[in-house]
Amino acid sequence: MRALIFDLDGTLVDTVYAHVFAWQQALAEAGMPIDGWRIHRRIGMSGGLFVRAVARELGRPLEPAEVDFIQTRHGVLFRELLPERRTLPGAFELLDELRAAGLSHGIATSGRRPEIDASLEQLGVGPETVVVDRGIVLRAKPEPDLFLACLDALGVPADECYVVGDAVWDILAARRAHMMSIGLLTGGYGEDELTRAGAFRVYRDPLELRESLDELGIDL
Amino acid sequence: MRALIFDLDGTLVDTVYAHVFAWQQALAEAGMPIDGWRIHRRIGMSGGLFVRAVARELGRPLEPAEVDFIQTRHGVLFRELLPERRTLPGAFELLDELRAAGLSHGIATSGRRPEIDASLEQLGVGPETVVVDRGIVLRAKPEPDLFLACLDALGVPADECYVVGDAVWDILAARRAHMMSIGLLTGGYGEDELTRAGAFRVYRDPLELRESLDELGIDL
Repeated sequence: MRALIFDLDGTLVDTVYAHVFAWQQALAEAGMPIDGWRIHRRIGMSGGLFVRAVARELGRPLEPAEVDFIQTRHGVLFRELLPERRTLPGAFELLDELRAAGLSHGIATSGRRPEIDASLEQLGVGPETVVVDRGIVLRAKPEPDLFLACLDALGVPADECYVVGDAVWDILAARRAHMMSIGLLTGGYGEDELTRAGAFRVYRDPLELRESLDELGIDL
Repeated sequence: MRALIFDLDGTLVDTVYAHVFAWQQALAEAGMPIDGWRIHRRIGMSGGLFVRAVARELGRPLEPAEVDFIQTRHGVLFRELLPERRTLPGAFELLDELRAAGLSHGIATSGRRPEIDASLEQLGVGPETVVVDRGIVLRAKPEPDLFLACLDALGVPADECYVVGDAVWDILAARRAHMMSIGLLTGGYGEDELTRAGAFRVYRDPLELRESLDELGIDL
């Protein structure tokens, strides 16, 4: 295996629970209170898809202006709740090692610039690293577009590259891009949920992944 | 089956994600930043046990004054984040039906009065309902004491009563009290995690539980 493509939120930076809570507040303010666990299980989808999925669950279609309001409000609340980003254990070191070893890798995220800039900075990711964000593709996860665009930029074939993600949406998008995937527990999914979705292996966090690269046929 | 004992946070009221975020903030302020998912998987333990478990994970013992600070700060942040409690779908109606049918039931929670009073009020639970809180027993979940004290107050034998909870700590405490248990997905655990811990059945939320009482041998 020659390459790794990483999801960002919940996989490399510890942002899932702040995202859940920010969505929950934003939706409640818009008159759509919804259970936390239902939000949690949809984190990692594109924001627009997420809001429409929630609306469908509540049985009421949303006007585009409402979708915009909720997405904007989520962004504001998220930054208030989590003014600083914290990298997950081993994430910084893993990326550093991949760069030093010259192993192809990239980041493909349903997040957008400039929202993701603080996370990239904490991870020590500079312009030398391929980063594909929501703004570049038409459709975010669980569509495969983000991973396909990242593969394309890396110039490696799908069957020689793993996706690393924390949500079943990463695993689903990877399958649709004909790539194998690795699940991390850092997003709060159970091991079995990730395995059943199709993850080849599940590790606790980037630290355990880093210690397990041999098991994955990756030679640094 | 003659009785039901309910956990409160995450089972009847939608508080898990606010608790996770409040613990994460309180621990970070105390110089102990810790991954959100690790906090999430420990919610439902007693607060003191929780803080000590986190300290063990970080490899540093805590002074009693530190434990007190973190617990107090968690309480303050939790009330700031979630000034109002929201009941989970079907919770209010289920309790109302149990009261109307005269089926024995109680609430056994690792929370404490007066913190839990707002939740009980939202659920329409008055002094006629048995509520066993952390202050009544020496040891909270996953020890069986809360459920045993609740059984005692209800006056029913363990093998005629179900525990209903959202966390593996409820399921574990129920087994130790020789009771069967029912898991709900409202706490953000995966179905398989609850089943493997020993839950007899897993439902989405109190609403689905209410519609499934026949499957459990409960006749209202």
